[in-house]
Amino acid sequence: MTRQELFENIKKKQSFLCVGLDTDIKKIPAHLLTEEDPIFAFNKAIIDATAPYCIAYKPNLAFYESMGVKGWISFEKTITYLNENYPDQFIIADAKRGDIGNTSAMYARTFFEEMQLDALTVAPYMGEDSVTPFLSYEGKWVILLALTSNKGSHNFQLSEDNRHERLFEKVLRVSQQWGNADNMMYVVGATQGRMFEDIRKIAPDHFLLVPGIGAQGGSLEDVCHYGMNRTCGLIVNSSRAIIYADSTEHFASVAAEKAREVQQQMAEQLKKII
Amino acid sequence: MTRQELFENIKKKQSFLCVGLDTDIKKIPAHLLTEEDPIFAFNKAIIDATAPYCIAYKPNLAFYESMGVKGWISFEKTITYLNENYPDQFIIADAKRGDIGNTSAMYARTFFEEMQLDALTVAPYMGEDSVTPFLSYEGKWVILLALTSNKGSHNFQLSEDNRHERLFEKVLRVSQQWGNADNMMYVVGATQGRMFEDIRKIAPDHFLLVPGIGAQGGSLEDVCHYGMNRTCGLIVNSSRAIIYADSTEHFASVAAEKAREVQQQMAEQLKKII
Repeated sequence: MTRQELFENIKKKQSFLCVGLDTDIKKIPAHLLTEEDPIFAFNKAIIDATAPYCIAYKPNLAFYESMGVKGWISFEKTITYLNENYPDQFIIADAKRGDIGNTSAMYARTFFEEMQLDALTVAPYMGEDSVTPFLSYEGKWVILLALTSNKGSHNFQLSEDNRHERLFEKVLRVSQQWGNADNMMYVVGATQGRMFEDIRKIAPDHFLLVPGIGAQGGSLEDVCHYGMNRTCGLIVNSSRAIIYADSTEHFASVAAEKAREVQQQMAEQLKKII
Repeated sequence: MTRQELFENIKKKQSFLCVGLDTDIKKIPAHLLTEEDPIFAFNKAIIDATAPYCIAYKPNLAFYESMGVKGWISFEKTITYLNENYPDQFIIADAKRGDIGNTSAMYARTFFEEMQLDALTVAPYMGEDSVTPFLSYEGKWVILLALTSNKGSHNFQLSEDNRHERLFEKVLRVSQQWGNADNMMYVVGATQGRMFEDIRKIAPDHFLLVPGIGAQGGSLEDVCHYGMNRTCGLIVNSSRAIIYADSTEHFASVAAEKAREVQQQMAEQLKKII
Protein backbone atom coordinates (compact mmCIF):
# COMPACT_ATOMS: atom_id res chain seq x y z
CA MET A 1 0.00 0.00 0.00
CA THR A 2 1.34 3.45 -0.90
CA ARG A 3 1.31 6.49 1.36
CA GLN A 4 -1.32 8.11 -0.85
CA GLU A 5 -3.57 5.03 -0.68
CA LEU A 6 -3.25 5.02 3.07
CA PHE A 7 -4.27 8.68 3.25
CA GLU A 8 -7.23 8.02 0.91
CA ASN A 9 -8.42 5.26 3.26
CA ILE A 10 -8.08 7.61 6.21
CA LYS A 11 -10.20 10.25 4.48
CA LYS A 12 -12.80 7.72 3.37
CA LYS A 13 -13.18 6.11 6.78
CA GLN A 14 -12.62 9.36 8.70
CA SER A 15 -10.36 7.33 10.90
CA PHE A 16 -6.69 6.66 11.52
CA LEU A 17 -7.35 3.95 14.06
CA CYS A 18 -5.35 0.74 14.15
CA VAL A 19 -6.87 -2.07 16.18
CA GLY A 20 -4.19 -4.05 17.99
CA LEU A 21 -4.85 -7.77 17.93
CA ASP A 22 -2.99 -8.61 21.15
CA THR A 23 -5.06 -11.73 21.50
CA ASP A 24 -4.43 -13.60 24.73
CA ILE A 25 -6.09 -16.95 25.35
CA LYS A 26 -6.35 -15.99 29.03
CA LYS A 27 -8.36 -12.85 28.27
CA ILE A 28 -10.83 -13.80 25.55
CA PRO A 29 -14.47 -14.55 26.44
CA ALA A 30 -14.86 -17.99 27.99
CA HIS A 31 -17.53 -19.15 25.55
CA LEU A 32 -14.96 -19.05 22.72
CA LEU A 33 -12.77 -21.66 24.35
CA THR A 34 -14.91 -24.44 22.92
CA GLU A 35 -14.15 -23.28 19.36
CA GLU A 36 -11.63 -25.28 17.35
CA ASP A 37 -9.34 -22.24 17.14
CA PRO A 38 -10.45 -19.78 19.85
CA ILE A 39 -7.79 -17.17 18.97
CA PHE A 40 -8.84 -17.01 15.34
CA ALA A 41 -12.54 -17.07 16.26
CA PHE A 42 -11.96 -14.07 18.52
CA ASN A 43 -9.94 -12.19 15.89
CA LYS A 44 -12.48 -12.85 13.14
CA ALA A 45 -15.33 -11.53 15.28
CA ILE A 46 -13.32 -8.46 16.34
CA ILE A 47 -12.28 -7.74 12.75
CA ASP A 48 -15.79 -8.08 11.33
CA ALA A 49 -17.14 -5.78 14.03
CA THR A 50 -14.45 -3.09 13.98
CA ALA A 51 -13.45 -2.92 10.30
CA PRO A 52 -15.79 -0.02 9.46
CA TYR A 53 -14.05 2.16 12.06
CA CYS A 54 -10.37 1.47 11.48
CA ILE A 55 -7.81 1.51 8.68
CA ALA A 56 -5.28 -0.93 10.09
CA TYR A 57 -4.81 -4.03 12.22
CA LYS A 58 -1.72 -4.83 14.22
CA PRO A 59 -1.33 -8.36 15.55
CA ASN A 60 1.45 -8.49 18.12
CA LEU A 61 3.53 -11.58 17.38
CA ALA A 62 4.38 -12.23 21.03
CA PHE A 63 0.80 -13.18 21.78
CA TYR A 64 0.76 -15.77 19.00
CA GLU A 65 4.24 -17.14 19.61
CA SER A 66 3.39 -17.71 23.24
CA MET A 67 1.12 -20.51 22.00
CA GLY A 68 3.80 -22.11 19.85
CA VAL A 69 2.76 -23.84 16.64
CA LYS A 70 -0.95 -23.39 17.38
CA GLY A 71 -0.43 -19.67 17.77
CA TRP A 72 1.32 -19.42 14.41
CA ILE A 73 -1.57 -21.19 12.77
CA SER A 74 -4.00 -18.68 14.33
CA PHE A 75 -1.76 -15.81 13.22
CA GLU A 76 -1.53 -17.02 9.63
CA LYS A 77 -5.30 -17.61 9.46
CA THR A 78 -5.89 -14.08 10.74
CA ILE A 79 -3.63 -12.55 8.08
CA THR A 80 -5.22 -14.61 5.32
CA TYR A 81 -8.69 -13.64 6.53
CA LEU A 82 -7.77 -9.95 6.51
CA ASN A 83 -6.20 -10.10 3.05
CA GLU A 84 -9.14 -11.95 1.54
CA ASN A 85 -11.95 -9.98 3.14
CA TYR A 86 -10.54 -6.55 3.94
CA PRO A 87 -7.94 -5.78 1.27
CA ASP A 88 -8.03 -2.06 2.11
CA GLN A 89 -6.83 -2.65 5.68
CA PHE A 90 -3.16 -1.95 6.36
CA ILE A 91 -1.72 -4.98 8.17
CA ILE A 92 1.17 -4.48 10.56
CA ALA A 93 3.08 -7.31 12.19
CA ASP A 94 4.25 -5.95 15.52
CA ALA A 95 7.35 -8.07 15.80
CA LYS A 96 10.15 -5.62 16.67
CA ARG A 97 12.65 -7.68 14.70
CA GLY A 98 16.16 -6.61 13.74
CA ASP A 99 19.23 -8.75 13.20
CA ILE A 100 22.36 -8.93 11.06
CA GLY A 101 21.74 -8.52 7.34
CA ASN A 102 21.29 -12.13 6.26
CA THR A 103 18.93 -12.77 9.18
CA SER A 104 16.85 -9.65 8.60
CA ALA A 105 16.56 -10.79 5.00
CA MET A 106 15.02 -14.04 6.27
CA TYR A 107 12.53 -12.10 8.35
CA ALA A 108 11.66 -9.93 5.35
CA ARG A 109 10.97 -13.09 3.34
CA THR A 110 8.70 -14.38 6.11
CA PHE A 111 6.63 -11.30 6.63
CA PHE A 112 6.52 -9.72 3.18
CA GLU A 113 6.66 -12.71 0.82
CA GLU A 114 5.10 -15.62 2.70
CA MET A 115 2.58 -13.69 4.75
CA GLN A 116 1.56 -10.71 2.65
CA LEU A 117 1.79 -8.20 5.46
CA ASP A 118 2.04 -4.48 4.71
CA ALA A 119 4.44 -3.48 7.45
CA LEU A 120 6.69 -4.76 10.17
CA THR A 121 7.99 -3.06 13.31
CA VAL A 122 11.79 -3.17 13.52
CA ALA A 123 14.20 -2.32 16.35
CA PRO A 124 17.02 0.05 15.34
CA TYR A 125 19.80 -0.99 17.77
CA MET A 126 21.76 -3.03 15.21
CA GLY A 127 21.79 -0.27 12.60
CA GLU A 128 21.67 -0.01 8.85
CA ASP A 129 22.16 -3.57 7.61
CA SER A 130 19.54 -4.82 10.08
CA VAL A 131 16.93 -2.49 8.56
CA THR A 132 17.64 -2.17 4.84
CA PRO A 133 16.70 -5.76 3.86
CA PHE A 134 13.09 -4.84 4.68
CA LEU A 135 13.15 -1.77 2.45
CA SER A 136 13.53 -3.49 -0.90
CA TYR A 137 9.90 -4.62 -1.16
CA GLU A 138 7.68 -2.29 -3.15
CA GLY A 139 4.60 -1.17 -1.27
CA LYS A 140 5.90 -2.62 2.00
CA TRP A 141 6.91 -0.64 5.07
CA VAL A 142 9.41 -0.70 7.89
CA ILE A 143 8.12 0.85 11.10
CA LEU A 144 11.21 1.66 13.09
CA LEU A 145 11.12 2.07 16.87
CA ALA A 146 11.97 5.67 17.71
CA LEU A 147 10.45 6.77 21.02
CA THR A 148 8.37 4.06 22.61
CA SER A 149 5.44 4.38 25.00
CA ASN A 150 6.87 2.45 27.93
CA LYS A 151 8.70 3.61 31.04
CA GLY A 152 11.95 1.99 29.89
CA SER A 153 12.02 4.31 26.87
CA HIS A 154 13.88 6.71 29.21
CA ASN A 155 16.81 4.36 29.75
CA PHE A 156 18.48 4.76 26.38
CA GLN A 157 16.21 6.52 23.88
CA LEU A 158 16.59 9.87 25.61
CA SER A 159 20.38 9.67 25.99
CA GLU A 160 21.95 12.82 24.63
CA ASP A 161 25.12 12.47 22.61
CA ASN A 162 28.00 14.92 22.59
CA ARG A 163 26.23 16.98 19.91
CA HIS A 164 23.12 17.25 22.13
CA GLU A 165 21.21 14.88 19.91
CA ARG A 166 19.08 12.33 21.73
CA LEU A 167 19.24 8.71 20.62
CA PHE A 168 15.68 8.67 19.24
CA GLU A 169 16.48 11.82 17.26
CA LYS A 170 19.60 10.19 15.88
CA VAL A 171 17.53 7.15 14.88
CA LEU A 172 15.09 9.45 13.06
CA ARG A 173 17.86 11.34 11.31
CA VAL A 174 20.23 8.53 10.38
CA SER A 175 17.49 6.14 9.21
CA GLN A 176 16.40 8.71 6.62
CA GLN A 177 19.60 7.82 4.78
CA TRP A 178 18.19 4.30 4.37
CA GLY A 179 14.54 4.89 3.58
CA ASN A 180 12.03 7.67 3.13
CA ALA A 181 8.48 8.69 3.94
CA ASP A 182 7.18 6.25 1.32
CA ASN A 183 8.63 3.09 2.83
CA MET A 184 9.38 3.93 6.44
CA MET A 185 7.35 4.96 9.47
CA TYR A 186 8.33 5.41 13.11
CA VAL A 187 6.90 4.14 16.37
CA VAL A 188 6.26 7.02 18.77
CA GLY A 189 4.34 6.34 21.96
CA ALA A 190 1.19 8.35 22.67
CA THR A 191 2.51 8.88 26.18
CA GLN A 192 5.28 11.12 24.84
CA GLY A 193 3.05 14.25 24.47
CA ARG A 194 5.03 17.29 23.34
CA MET A 195 7.91 15.17 22.11
CA PHE A 196 5.89 14.86 18.91
CA GLU A 197 6.91 18.45 18.18
CA ASP A 198 10.59 17.51 18.27
CA ILE A 199 9.91 14.47 16.12
CA ARG A 200 8.08 16.49 13.48
CA LYS A 201 11.09 18.78 13.18
CA ILE A 202 13.17 15.83 11.99
CA ALA A 203 10.50 13.75 10.24
CA PRO A 204 7.78 16.13 9.03
CA ASP A 205 6.30 13.86 6.37
CA HIS A 206 6.59 10.36 7.79
CA PHE A 207 3.67 8.43 9.16
CA LEU A 208 4.01 7.66 12.86
CA LEU A 209 2.57 4.52 14.41
CA VAL A 210 1.34 5.59 17.82
CA PRO A 211 0.64 3.01 20.52
CA GLY A 212 -0.23 3.94 24.07
CA ILE A 213 -3.74 5.36 23.73
CA GLY A 214 -6.16 3.73 26.15
CA ALA A 215 -4.70 1.22 28.60
CA GLN A 216 -1.33 2.99 28.62
CA GLY A 217 -2.81 6.44 29.21
CA GLY A 218 -1.80 8.55 26.19
CA SER A 219 -4.02 11.41 24.99
CA LEU A 220 -5.38 11.37 21.42
CA GLU A 221 -5.81 15.12 21.50
CA ASP A 222 -2.17 15.78 22.41
CA VAL A 223 -0.95 13.33 19.81
CA CYS A 224 -2.97 15.09 17.10
CA HIS A 225 -2.11 18.57 18.30
CA TYR A 226 1.63 17.96 18.18
CA GLY A 227 1.93 15.12 15.68
CA MET A 228 -0.55 15.47 12.81
CA ASN A 229 0.70 16.58 9.41
CA ARG A 230 -0.95 17.46 6.06
CA THR A 231 -1.57 13.83 5.14
CA CYS A 232 -2.58 12.94 8.71
CA GLY A 233 0.75 11.21 9.33
CA LEU A 234 -0.65 9.24 12.24
CA ILE A 235 -1.82 5.69 12.72
CA VAL A 236 -3.01 5.48 16.30
CA ASN A 237 -3.23 2.04 17.82
CA SER A 238 -5.56 0.85 20.53
CA SER A 239 -5.53 -2.75 21.66
CA ARG A 240 -6.80 -3.68 25.11
CA ALA A 241 -9.28 -0.81 25.45
CA ILE A 242 -11.12 -2.07 22.37
CA ILE A 243 -10.70 -5.81 22.11
CA TYR A 244 -11.18 -6.55 25.81
CA ALA A 245 -13.84 -3.91 26.51
CA ASP A 246 -16.34 -6.70 27.23
CA SER A 247 -15.89 -10.37 28.06
CA THR A 248 -19.42 -11.64 27.46
CA GLU A 249 -21.04 -12.93 24.28
CA HIS A 250 -21.45 -9.29 23.28
CA PHE A 251 -17.70 -8.68 23.16
CA ALA A 252 -17.63 -7.97 19.42
CA SER A 253 -20.43 -5.41 19.40
CA VAL A 254 -18.96 -3.67 22.45
CA ALA A 255 -15.57 -3.59 20.70
CA ALA A 256 -17.26 -2.05 17.66
CA GLU A 257 -18.85 0.57 19.87
CA LYS A 258 -15.48 1.43 21.46
CA ALA A 259 -13.80 1.60 18.04
CA ARG A 260 -16.59 3.84 16.77
CA GLU A 261 -16.11 6.21 19.73
CA VAL A 262 -12.42 6.57 18.88
CA GLN A 263 -13.24 6.94 15.17
CA GLN A 264 -15.58 9.83 15.97
CA GLN A 265 -12.91 11.60 17.98
CA MET A 266 -10.56 11.07 15.06
CA ALA A 267 -13.08 12.49 12.58
CA GLU A 268 -13.12 15.66 14.69
CA GLN A 269 -9.34 15.89 14.59
CA LEU A 270 -9.26 15.28 10.83
CA LYS A 271 -11.38 18.40 10.24
CA LYS A 272 -8.24 20.38 10.97
CA ILE A 273 -6.49 19.10 7.85
CA ILE A 274 -9.17 18.00 5.38
CA MET B 1 21.63 -23.86 34.17
CA THR B 2 23.79 -21.90 36.63
CA ARG B 3 26.96 -20.04 35.78
CA GLN B 4 28.98 -22.63 37.72
CA GLU B 5 27.39 -25.52 35.82
CA LEU B 6 28.16 -23.79 32.56
CA PHE B 7 31.81 -23.39 33.57
CA GLU B 8 31.98 -27.05 34.65
CA ASN B 9 30.73 -28.09 31.21
CA ILE B 10 33.34 -25.87 29.58
CA LYS B 11 36.12 -27.49 31.61
CA LYS B 12 34.82 -31.00 30.98
CA LYS B 13 34.45 -30.53 27.23
CA GLN B 14 37.48 -28.25 26.90
CA SER B 15 35.27 -26.11 24.74
CA PHE B 16 33.21 -22.94 24.84
CA LEU B 17 31.81 -23.42 21.38
CA CYS B 18 28.18 -22.75 20.55
CA VAL B 19 26.94 -24.20 17.28
CA GLY B 20 24.49 -21.85 15.59
CA LEU B 21 21.57 -23.68 14.05
CA ASP B 22 20.82 -21.12 11.31
CA THR B 23 19.16 -23.81 9.28
CA ASP B 24 18.07 -22.64 5.84
CA ILE B 25 16.09 -24.96 3.59
CA LYS B 26 17.94 -23.44 0.63
CA LYS B 27 21.36 -24.42 2.00
CA ILE B 28 20.97 -27.90 3.44
CA PRO B 29 22.16 -30.94 1.46
CA ALA B 30 19.76 -31.83 -1.33
CA HIS B 31 19.34 -35.45 -0.29
CA LEU B 32 17.59 -34.30 2.90
CA LEU B 33 14.76 -32.64 1.00
CA THR B 34 12.97 -35.97 0.66
CA GLU B 35 12.75 -36.30 4.45
CA GLU B 36 9.40 -35.59 6.10
CA ASP B 37 10.95 -32.68 8.03
CA PRO B 38 14.23 -31.75 6.29
CA ILE B 39 15.07 -28.96 8.75
CA PHE B 40 14.77 -31.21 11.77
CA ALA B 41 16.59 -34.06 9.99
CA PHE B 42 19.48 -31.68 9.30
CA ASN B 43 19.53 -30.33 12.87
CA LYS B 44 19.41 -33.79 14.42
CA ALA B 45 22.36 -34.97 12.32
CA ILE B 46 24.36 -31.82 13.07
CA ILE B 47 23.62 -32.07 16.80
CA ASP B 48 24.54 -35.76 17.05
CA ALA B 49 27.79 -35.10 15.19
CA THR B 50 28.91 -31.92 16.96
CA ALA B 51 27.68 -32.42 20.54
CA PRO B 52 31.02 -33.80 21.82
CA TYR B 53 32.76 -30.57 20.80
CA CYS B 54 30.37 -27.85 21.96
CA ILE B 55 28.58 -26.72 25.10
CA ALA B 56 25.71 -24.80 23.54
CA TYR B 57 23.36 -24.61 20.57
CA LYS B 58 21.78 -21.46 19.24
CA PRO B 59 18.91 -21.78 16.80
CA ASN B 60 18.19 -18.44 15.15
CA LEU B 61 14.44 -17.97 15.14
CA ALA B 62 14.40 -16.05 11.86
CA PHE B 63 15.38 -19.14 9.93
CA TYR B 64 12.46 -21.12 11.39
CA GLU B 65 9.89 -18.34 11.19
CA SER B 66 10.70 -17.87 7.51
CA MET B 67 9.00 -21.23 6.98
CA GLY B 68 5.89 -20.29 8.93
CA VAL B 69 4.05 -23.00 10.86
CA LYS B 70 6.26 -25.76 9.45
CA GLY B 71 9.33 -23.92 10.66
CA TRP B 72 7.94 -23.62 14.18
CA ILE B 73 7.30 -27.35 14.24
CA SER B 74 10.93 -27.98 13.22
CA PHE B 75 12.10 -25.54 15.88
CA GLU B 76 10.07 -27.15 18.65
CA LYS B 77 11.21 -30.63 17.64
CA THR B 78 14.83 -29.46 17.73
CA ILE B 79 14.48 -28.03 21.23
CA THR B 80 12.72 -31.17 22.49
CA TYR B 81 15.40 -33.36 20.93
CA LEU B 82 18.15 -31.34 22.61
CA ASN B 83 16.46 -31.37 26.01
CA GLU B 84 15.81 -35.12 25.91
CA ASN B 85 19.16 -36.25 24.54
CA TYR B 86 21.68 -33.59 25.51
CA PRO B 87 20.51 -32.11 28.82
CA ASP B 88 23.97 -30.64 29.49
CA GLN B 89 23.82 -28.41 26.40
CA PHE B 90 22.94 -24.76 26.98
CA ILE B 91 20.16 -23.83 24.57
CA ILE B 92 19.90 -20.26 23.35
CA ALA B 93 17.02 -18.94 21.28
CA ASP B 94 18.50 -16.18 19.15
CA ALA B 95 15.37 -14.12 18.85
CA LYS B 96 16.44 -10.57 19.74
CA ARG B 97 13.08 -9.87 21.31
CA GLY B 98 12.19 -6.85 23.44
CA ASP B 99 8.85 -5.13 23.85
CA ILE B 100 6.76 -3.32 26.48
CA GLY B 101 6.46 -5.16 29.79
CA ASN B 102 3.29 -7.17 29.23
CA THR B 103 4.51 -8.29 25.81
CA SER B 104 7.98 -9.25 27.01
CA ALA B 105 6.22 -11.28 29.69
CA MET B 106 4.42 -13.19 26.93
CA TYR B 107 7.74 -13.89 25.20
CA ALA B 108 9.24 -15.07 28.49
CA ARG B 109 6.33 -17.50 28.88
CA THR B 110 6.91 -18.80 25.35
CA PHE B 111 10.62 -19.36 25.57
CA PHE B 112 11.16 -20.26 29.22
CA GLU B 113 7.94 -22.05 30.19
CA GLU B 114 6.60 -23.63 27.01
CA MET B 115 9.90 -24.36 25.30
CA GLN B 116 12.41 -25.05 28.06
CA LEU B 117 15.16 -22.94 26.60
CA ASP B 118 18.04 -21.77 28.77
CA ALA B 119 18.53 -18.32 27.33
CA LEU B 120 17.10 -15.74 24.98
CA THR B 121 18.78 -12.86 23.16
CA VAL B 122 17.04 -9.55 23.89
CA ALA B 123 17.40 -6.09 22.29
CA PRO B 124 17.93 -3.26 24.80
CA TYR B 125 16.40 -0.30 22.94
CA MET B 126 13.13 -0.28 24.91
CA GLY B 127 14.85 -0.33 28.31
CA GLU B 128 14.18 -1.79 31.72
CA ASP B 129 10.59 -3.04 31.56
CA SER B 130 11.31 -4.75 28.23
CA VAL B 131 14.10 -6.81 29.82
CA THR B 132 13.13 -7.53 33.43
CA PRO B 133 10.21 -9.92 32.67
CA PHE B 134 12.81 -12.39 31.40
CA LEU B 135 14.88 -12.19 34.59
CA SER B 136 12.40 -13.73 36.99
CA TYR B 137 12.97 -17.33 35.88
CA GLU B 138 15.48 -19.24 37.99
CA GLY B 139 18.27 -20.78 35.99
CA LYS B 140 17.27 -18.87 32.85
CA TRP B 141 19.28 -16.16 31.15
CA VAL B 142 18.82 -12.94 29.23
CA ILE B 143 21.54 -12.30 26.66
CA LEU B 144 21.34 -8.59 25.99
CA LEU B 145 22.67 -7.09 22.76
CA ALA B 146 25.59 -4.84 23.62
CA LEU B 147 28.06 -4.50 20.73
CA THR B 148 27.04 -6.58 17.75
CA SER B 149 29.21 -8.06 15.01
CA ASN B 150 27.63 -6.35 12.02
CA LYS B 151 28.59 -3.19 10.16
CA GLY B 152 25.47 -1.37 11.37
CA SER B 153 26.69 -1.69 14.96
CA HIS B 154 28.50 1.59 14.27
CA ASN B 155 25.32 3.54 13.60
CA PHE B 156 24.08 3.80 17.18
CA GLN B 157 25.98 1.48 19.51
CA LEU B 158 29.13 3.59 19.37
CA SER B 159 27.37 6.94 19.88
CA GLU B 160 29.03 8.80 22.71
CA ASP B 161 26.80 10.63 25.16
CA ASN B 162 27.61 13.92 26.83
CA ARG B 163 29.50 12.06 29.57
CA HIS B 164 31.69 10.33 26.94
CA GLU B 165 29.94 7.04 27.49
CA ARG B 166 29.18 5.07 24.36
CA LEU B 167 25.71 3.56 24.00
CA PHE B 168 26.91 -0.05 24.32
CA GLU B 169 28.77 0.92 27.51
CA LYS B 170 25.63 2.53 28.87
CA VAL B 171 23.69 -0.64 28.08
CA LEU B 172 26.31 -2.68 29.96
CA ARG B 173 26.27 -0.34 32.95
CA VAL B 174 22.56 0.40 33.27
CA SER B 175 21.44 -3.20 32.71
CA GLN B 176 23.49 -4.28 35.73
CA GLN B 177 20.85 -2.54 37.82
CA TRP B 178 18.34 -5.09 36.48
CA GLY B 179 20.26 -8.33 36.51
CA ASN B 180 23.67 -9.75 37.35
CA ALA B 181 26.33 -12.15 36.13
CA ASP B 182 24.15 -15.08 37.20
CA ASN B 183 21.16 -14.31 35.00
CA MET B 184 22.45 -11.99 32.30
CA MET B 185 25.00 -12.23 29.52
CA TYR B 186 25.86 -9.83 26.69
CA VAL B 187 26.21 -10.23 22.95
CA VAL B 188 29.56 -8.89 21.76
CA GLY B 189 30.63 -9.53 18.19
CA ALA B 190 33.94 -11.30 17.56
CA THR B 191 34.68 -8.64 14.96
CA GLN B 192 35.04 -6.03 17.73
CA GLY B 193 38.64 -7.02 18.68
CA ARG B 194 40.09 -4.75 21.36
CA MET B 195 36.67 -3.44 22.35
CA PHE B 196 36.51 -6.53 24.57
CA GLU B 197 38.96 -4.74 26.87
CA ASP B 198 36.53 -1.86 27.34
CA ILE B 199 33.70 -4.28 27.90
CA ARG B 200 35.59 -6.21 30.58
CA LYS B 201 36.13 -2.96 32.49
CA ILE B 202 32.37 -2.63 32.91
CA ALA B 203 31.34 -6.29 32.99
CA PRO B 204 34.30 -8.30 34.30
CA ASP B 205 32.35 -11.36 35.44
CA HIS B 206 29.58 -11.74 32.90
CA PHE B 207 29.54 -14.36 30.21
CA LEU B 208 29.65 -12.90 26.70
CA LEU B 209 27.98 -14.58 23.75
CA VAL B 210 30.29 -13.96 20.83
CA PRO B 211 29.05 -14.38 17.26
CA GLY B 212 31.12 -13.44 14.25
CA ILE B 213 33.82 -16.13 14.23
CA GLY B 214 34.08 -17.84 10.84
CA ALA B 215 31.91 -16.46 8.05
CA GLN B 216 31.91 -12.96 9.58
CA GLY B 217 35.71 -12.87 9.99
CA GLY B 218 36.31 -12.45 13.75
CA SER B 219 39.46 -13.87 15.39
CA LEU B 220 39.15 -16.43 18.19
CA GLU B 221 42.60 -15.51 19.46
CA ASP B 222 41.76 -11.82 19.81
CA VAL B 223 38.46 -12.58 21.48
CA CYS B 224 40.19 -14.79 24.06
CA HIS B 225 43.10 -12.42 24.57
CA TYR B 226 40.88 -9.46 25.36
CA GLY B 227 37.69 -11.10 26.57
CA MET B 228 38.38 -14.23 28.63
CA ASN B 229 37.93 -14.10 32.41
CA ARG B 230 38.58 -16.52 35.30
CA THR B 231 35.51 -18.61 34.56
CA CYS B 232 36.08 -18.40 30.80
CA GLY B 233 33.27 -15.89 30.40
CA LEU B 234 32.93 -16.61 26.70
CA ILE B 235 30.51 -18.62 24.62
CA VAL B 236 31.74 -18.33 21.06
CA ASN B 237 29.27 -19.08 18.32
CA SER B 238 29.97 -20.42 14.88
CA SER B 239 27.13 -21.17 12.48
CA ARG B 240 27.75 -21.24 8.75
CA ALA B 241 31.42 -22.28 8.94
CA ILE B 242 30.39 -25.47 10.74
CA ILE B 243 26.92 -26.46 9.62
CA TYR B 244 27.42 -25.69 5.92
CA ALA B 245 31.05 -26.83 5.65
CA ASP B 246 29.93 -29.63 3.34
CA SER B 247 26.78 -30.15 1.28
CA THR B 248 27.12 -33.85 0.45
CA GLU B 249 25.95 -36.90 2.37
CA HIS B 250 29.00 -36.42 4.58
CA PHE B 251 27.82 -33.04 5.84
CA ALA B 252 27.48 -34.18 9.45
CA SER B 253 30.92 -35.74 9.76
CA VAL B 254 32.52 -32.71 8.10
CA ALA B 255 30.62 -30.45 10.53
CA ALA B 256 31.96 -32.59 13.40
CA GLU B 257 35.49 -32.20 12.06
CA LYS B 258 35.10 -28.41 11.81
CA ALA B 259 33.66 -28.24 15.33
CA ARG B 260 36.51 -30.38 16.63
CA GLU B 261 39.07 -28.03 15.05
CA VAL B 262 37.52 -25.06 16.85
CA GLN B 263 37.28 -27.06 20.08
CA GLN B 264 40.99 -27.83 19.92
CA GLN B 265 41.84 -24.16 19.48
CA MET B 266 39.61 -23.44 22.44
CA ALA B 267 41.33 -26.09 24.57
CA GLU B 268 44.61 -24.26 23.91
CA GLN B 269 43.09 -20.97 25.03
CA LEU B 270 41.59 -22.55 28.16
CA LYS B 271 45.07 -23.57 29.35
CA LYS B 272 45.56 -19.93 30.27
CA ILE B 273 42.91 -20.06 32.98
CA ILE B 274 42.53 -23.69 34.07
